[in-house]
Formats: sequence, structure tokens, C-alpha cells
Amino acid sequence: MVQVGLIGLGTVGTGVAKIIKSQNLRINKLVGTEVALTKFCDTIATSKPEIGLNDGILKDYKEILADKSIDIVVELIGGYEPARTIILEAIRAGKHVVTANKAVLAKYLDEILMVAQKHERQIYFEAAVGGGIPVIQGLNEGLAANQIKKIIGILNGTTNFILTQMVEKNISFEQALKAAQKAGFAESDPSFDIEGTDTAHKLVILSSIAFGSWIKISDVYCEGISKLELYDLQVAQELGYGLKLLGIAKDSAGEIEVKVHPTLLPLKHPFISVRNEYNAISITGDAADDVMFYGKGAGMMAAASNVVADIIYLARQVAQGTAGKLPYIIYDPKDKVSILNHEKISSKYYLRFAMEDKPGVLAKIAGILGDSNVSIASVYQPKTIHPEKKGVPIILTTHLAEEGKVQKALQQINQLPITKSNAIFIRIEEDGR
Amino acid sequence: MVQVGLIGLGTVGTGVAKIIKSQNLRINKLVGTEVALTKFCDTIATSKPEIGLNDGILKDYKEILADKSIDIVVELIGGYEPARTIILEAIRAGKHVVTANKAVLAKYLDEILMVAQKHERQIYFEAAVGGGIPVIQGLNEGLAANQIKKIIGILNGTTNFILTQMVEKNISFEQALKAAQKAGFAESDPSFDIEGTDTAHKLVILSSIAFGSWIKISDVYCEGISKLELYDLQVAQELGYGLKLLGIAKDSAGEIEVKVHPTLLPLKHPFISVRNEYNAISITGDAADDVMFYGKGAGMMAAASNVVADIIYLARQVAQGTAGKLPYIIYDPKDKVSILNHEKISSKYYLRFAMEDKPGVLAKIAGILGDSNVSIASVYQPKTIHPEKKGVPIILTTHLAEEGKVQKALQQINQLPITKSNAIFIRIEEDGR
Repeated sequence: MVQVGLIGLGTVGTGVAKIIKSQNLRINKLVGTEVALTKFCDTIATSKPEIGLNDGILKDYKEILADKSIDIVVELIGGYEPARTIILEAIRAGKHVVTANKAVLAKYLDEILMVAQKHERQIYFEAAVGGGIPVIQGLNEGLAANQIKKIIGILNGTTNFILTQMVEKNISFEQALKAAQKAGFAESDPSFDIEGTDTAHKLVILSSIAFGSWIKISDVYCEGISKLELYDLQVAQELGYGLKLLGIAKDSAGEIEVKVHPTLLPLKHPFISVRNEYNAISITGDAADDVMFYGKGAGMMAAASNVVADIIYLARQVAQGTAGKLPYIIYDPKDKVSILNHEKISSKYYLRFAMEDKPGVLAKIAGILGDSNVSIASVYQPKTIHPEKKGVPIILTTHLAEEGKVQKALQQINQLPITKSNAIFIRIEEDGR
Repeated sequence: MVQVGLIGLGTVGTGVAKIIKSQNLRINKLVGTEVALTKFCDTIATSKPEIGLNDGILKDYKEILADKSIDIVVELIGGYEPARTIILEAIRAGKHVVTANKAVLAKYLDEILMVAQKHERQIYFEAAVGGGIPVIQGLNEGLAANQIKKIIGILNGTTNFILTQMVEKNISFEQALKAAQKAGFAESDPSFDIEGTDTAHKLVILSSIAFGSWIKISDVYCEGISKLELYDLQVAQELGYGLKLLGIAKDSAGEIEVKVHPTLLPLKHPFISVRNEYNAISITGDAADDVMFYGKGAGMMAAASNVVADIIYLARQVAQGTAGKLPYIIYDPKDKVSILNHEKISSKYYLRFAMEDKPGVLAKIAGILGDSNVSIASVYQPKTIHPEKKGVPIILTTHLAEEGKVQKALQQINQLPITKSNAIFIRIEEDGR
């Protein structure tokens, strides 16, 4: 028998207990022996009748760690602390760990993986990224034969819900945020999601696995969606683009670019059909080319599905006596990766200027962009009128250009006397970049 | 060291050798010991300089099976025989097996899995379905916590290429098939692909894993794309649908429906953006809900990526001494599944009738459908004119109706004196069904 202790009986924890109870015959077949949830800890709940717990819920996680018969500890409390302490103490107490906690992993990945390696314990964390999508396994094992070139992902259900509602219902960011809060997809303080932090956390986890070393949160350039105007989403659509908040990690000739920002994608891109709370992750390997994983990014049972899958793999290894003998992921902090400075990253851009209606305006803008080595791909006169009618809108798209050069040019244009308000820029992601 | 013997040095076999050579440091780290391709067999090639083989290519696979130092045999010759014999003999000789051969698996799945179980050997076959997409692992391990409710897949790159070209270039099936042959995506005899057989093979593999018992090829209702008219794709598009050849397996209240046929999907469905040679598989579990896997369905390196991933997992287990102790998939032919008779399957339908231009025609059709308990959801007058102008086109969509009842009604309508040519029917797949 493999014994599991569960810390945190919120929605995901309750889902995990439900699945292990209802699927126990299948799970035991897969593992080759019985898998049993034998101890539970939650600081608030005293009973959980829906999973058959009328009492016996421990208040102190240390009681689980002290129990020698527990093989696997499942941490589902979220947040940085005490989650970090629990995970580290569990490993030091000889337990293998399953967690769904992206925040603690993103912040303490190096410490946690090194302690696990040292103690020959395994840590699995499939539910930390992409809700019910088995993308960590896909990246780590399914694509094991590949050198990873690129990862792009819609990694946050809240922001994707908001962006979907904006475009489909023609409503502002503020209105869409309220709809998301009403539908239970956004917190009352939504900043963690809408400013891109949650996406950055997940990107840290995926890119650290992909490139075999620690990509830190501070390495990630991060821009959220709270300043987006519906108008630009509408104009972009006229131009053949849809907008998504993406986490992007790319190997650019040995240097890694890692960034989170609103991004335009061609309307034929598979991500455009990823609506509302759904997530998708596209991984490009040198052999498999691009492989995409798609599914529900949120929801009690979706995350629980991934936690239980982790418990199954781990339990199988525990039963076979091999758990922890080989690390789950190839991670070596000594393999330093070089992070490409954000200023040096090349993208295509959508640019919107609001200018006075005078002759020579376009020539002026084009001149400044040209002087900064930013080459124009198209000029567009939108069909849709800007609701505030601030000046004449001029829409440009650029060829690949360096971020630093684009920003310098935009600063100059913003200071022109003929400029009515600051230029809007949105990066474009197309095939091959 | 884990030693691998490779049988079949075609494009995929050559790709496998290339990856193992170029990625050997990463692979050895993942496995915890060296993985070496030590013996090669091919009945035609005598040298393969691109993978460093100037001679020593064996002509008789039995020499590989007789070599006690070989742990894993990789079968990449394709077809039913001698592939079946090689796989079975390899297992009986104590080897673990990796294969990309969907045909042999679909036809002999039961025999192969039972012999593997009996001899405690493992067989992995990730590349048999979906080219470079790790969908077998996703279904078998990633979604292990789920009872599988539904699988739908674009499983054949050739037909998807043809259908994409028809719609995007407004060309006939015959023209698109020629384009596919020119692009190297279709064989000179394309019947295996276009009649749905290849899709049925892959569906047999996926559904047997999903439902834990043998779904036979003869259980699969199979209809190809060779009779499709561009006109119906155009009209369907006006109605908000796109057409894909799908493999579909569903658990309908304990009975399994397994079928391959051209299928209309709402234009917002993620499968609509799966273009050309790409494949996608959507799996619905009771906990994870729908999870989709997407990637290149064809190509030397894509399939090789999956074969090497299989070699890595297997080699890790060989090195740890656990390979074959637990079967890779939970499969028990004694767990009989009940296959739902195709006549009893309920779908929504797109129906096109070509009728004489007379009053009362619609009433006549509606009456016959109503008498057969087929309920009409919409009536549509297409904007596009049929190129042959055979009668007046009447397009109907139905609510859910039983296949047998629809077919009976269509037979009656086809025999009416006012009918100019036989009714066209295409099944519609929408959310919730």
C-alpha cells in the first residue's frame, strides 16, 4: 500500500479526495497496489462529509510529516508560506511531494528542486500549470527527445476570459473584468491575474524545465492587460489579428527571451479559438515541431485530475522502489542560461498614433521610425472610429524591430506637437518568430 | 548501458538514429545511464552514411532478437507482416518493444498486449497515433485520474490537407487530392487514407486504451471523404460549420460508439484552425473535462521524436529494473465493452436535397422526416448556387436523431418523383454530444 497525506482541503483538495475514492479500482490497477489517502490536514475545516470525513482532520501539518507510514505528501494550500516550509520539511522528512502551487515553485524552484535532489525525493507539480492539461509531462517526457526552441502559452484563464468577452461582446476592459468577477473567474483584487504575474509564474516553471536551469521571475519581462482599449482589439481584428495575453519563452541563438505581454496573433492561429477560461500551451521542439496542449485552465476537478495523475505516477515509483532515484526533471542550476535583455528582443509591432489632421503627419512618423531602424510593413486606416475621437488614428505595423529602438522612436513621436496622445503599441507574434 | 536494436531504416528510423546521436547527453541524463543504438536491420539499405552507418546493417532481424545484450527492439518497418511476427518474437525473446506501427497494433492489439503481459515485457507505441504529438501518454498517464467519456480526433494528415485545400482554395476533392499527392502528403493509391482506414486504425488504438479493452476495427463504422462535394463545404460554411474527417469514440451510457466519418463542427471549434497535415485529438474526461493535443501528424522527425521519447521511458525502466513489471496500459480483454449499433447512434445532421421547383416540396420532405421521428432544427436557402444546378437545393439541419431513422427517411425521399438526385447527409458534432 502507498499512503498519501493531504494538506489543504479547499476545492482542489476535496476534488482529489473525491477522485481517489471514486476511481480507486482503476488507480490501484495502474499503481499495482492500493493507494490510500490516510491523513488529512486543514487549518479551517473540521469536517468534510462530502468526502466521508466527519472528524480526524489534523490542524498541524507536522503530524503528517512525522507519520513514517506516509509516502507522499500533497500540498494544496497555495501561496508562498507556509507552503514552502511544508514542502521542504516534507522532503527532508523523506516524503515525496505533489503540489499544485505555482507561486511557491516560481519563487523557490531552485531551493525546492535542489533539496529534493539531495534527499533523493521526487516532486511533481502537473497542476501548477494549465489546470487540467498534462503539459508538464508533455514537455518533460513526451517531448524529451527535443531541444526546446519556443514555448508560447495562454496560461491564465481570468485574463483570457476578459479578452474573449471584450472582443465577442464589444465591451471595455472594465466591463469585462466585472463580468469575470461575476462569473467567478476573477478575484475581487484581480491584479495578480490582470497584471500578468500569474502567467509569469507559470512561464518560469515551463521555461526552467524547457531550458534545464532556473529562469527566475525577475528574468521575465511582464506587462498585463489592464491598459488595453477595446478599440485596438477591434482595429486589430480588421487587420486580421486577435489578441491574447501570452507567456513567451524562446531560444534566440543561445540567449533566452522570457516575457509576458498582450500579443496579436493571426486570426488563423490555433490560439484564437482558445476562448474564455481555457488555456493552451504551444511548445516547439527541434524534432516534433510545434505541439499544442489545450484544456480548462481552471476548475476544481480539472486541477484535481492533474494532482491525482501525479499521485499515480509517484505511487507507482514508490511501489516499485524507484521513486527519487532519478530526478523527475533534468535541472542543473550550474547550467547557466543567458537571458536576452528585453531591449534587444525583436518583434513585429502594431502601432497606433493619434495625430492632428495635418498634411505631412505620416511622413513625420515614418521618418522618426526610419531613423530608429524600424521598418514599416503596412499603413492602415481603420474602419472603426475611436470613441473619444482623439485626433486622426494612424495604424502601422512594422517588420521585425528591436524593442529598445521602437520605444525610443515612440518617445520621440509622443513628444511631437502634432501628437494628440501617446502611441499605443502591441507586439505581434507570427509564424517563425 | 541500455542497448537498443533498430529494425527498419526508412525515414523515421533514420530520424530516430539522428536524434539519439545528437541528443545523447540529454538522453543519458534522463535515463541515468547510456542509451546506445547497437544493432541495425534493414532489408534494403546496405549503408546509411547520414547516421554514420557504412556497413554492418543486418539483413535478418533474428540476429537482433538473438543478441542477449539488446534490451529494446524498435520496429519501424510498418505494415502487418512481418511486423507482427517481429514484435511477437521480440517479446518472446525477452525484449521490450517500441513501434510506430498503427496498422499492426489496430489489427493485432489483443494478441500483442496479451503476449507482452504474459512475458512481462513492455510495448510502447506513441508514434502510432498523431505523428509528433504525445497523445498516448497524455491519455494513458496524464488523464489517468479520469474516466474517459469521449475522444474526437483529426487523426489523418492526408485527408485534413485535402479538406483544408478544398475550403481555402475553392477546389474539388479531385483537385485537392492531386495537390496533396504533389506536396507528398498522399500516396499514389490514396484509398487507405481517404476512405478513413488509417483514421480507424488510430481510433482503435486510442479507444482501446480509453475504455480498457479491445475495440476492433470491425467495431468501427467507417466512411471516408472521397464523395464529398465542395458545394456542401461552402454551404456548411455559410451555416457556420467547417468540415473535418473525425475519428469519434464516445461512452453513451455504458455503450461505446466508435466511428469515422466526415463531420461538421461549429466554426468556433478549436479543430477548425487545425489545418493541412496537422492532427488534433480532443479527449473528454470526467474530471479534466476536454483536453486537446495538437501537432504535426506527419513527417520524419515528428514521428522520430515520439519513438525516441518511448525509448527514453523504456530505457529508464530497464535501467531501474522495473520494465515490464507493470503493464504500460490497463488492458483486460475480459472487460468486455458493448459497442453501440451504428443505426442507434444519435447525431445532428446537415441534409441537402435537390428537388423539382414545385410548391409543397418542403412540406413533403418535412412530412417524411417527421413520420420517421427526425425533427428539423433549421431550413436554409444557400447563397451559393450548385454548379450543376440539379434541381432546387433545400438544406435542412436536424436536432439529434437516430442514424437508422434518418437513413430510412432519406431512402423514402430519394424515391419521390420530385427528387432530382439522392440526398446528401453529413453528421454534425456539437458541444454536449
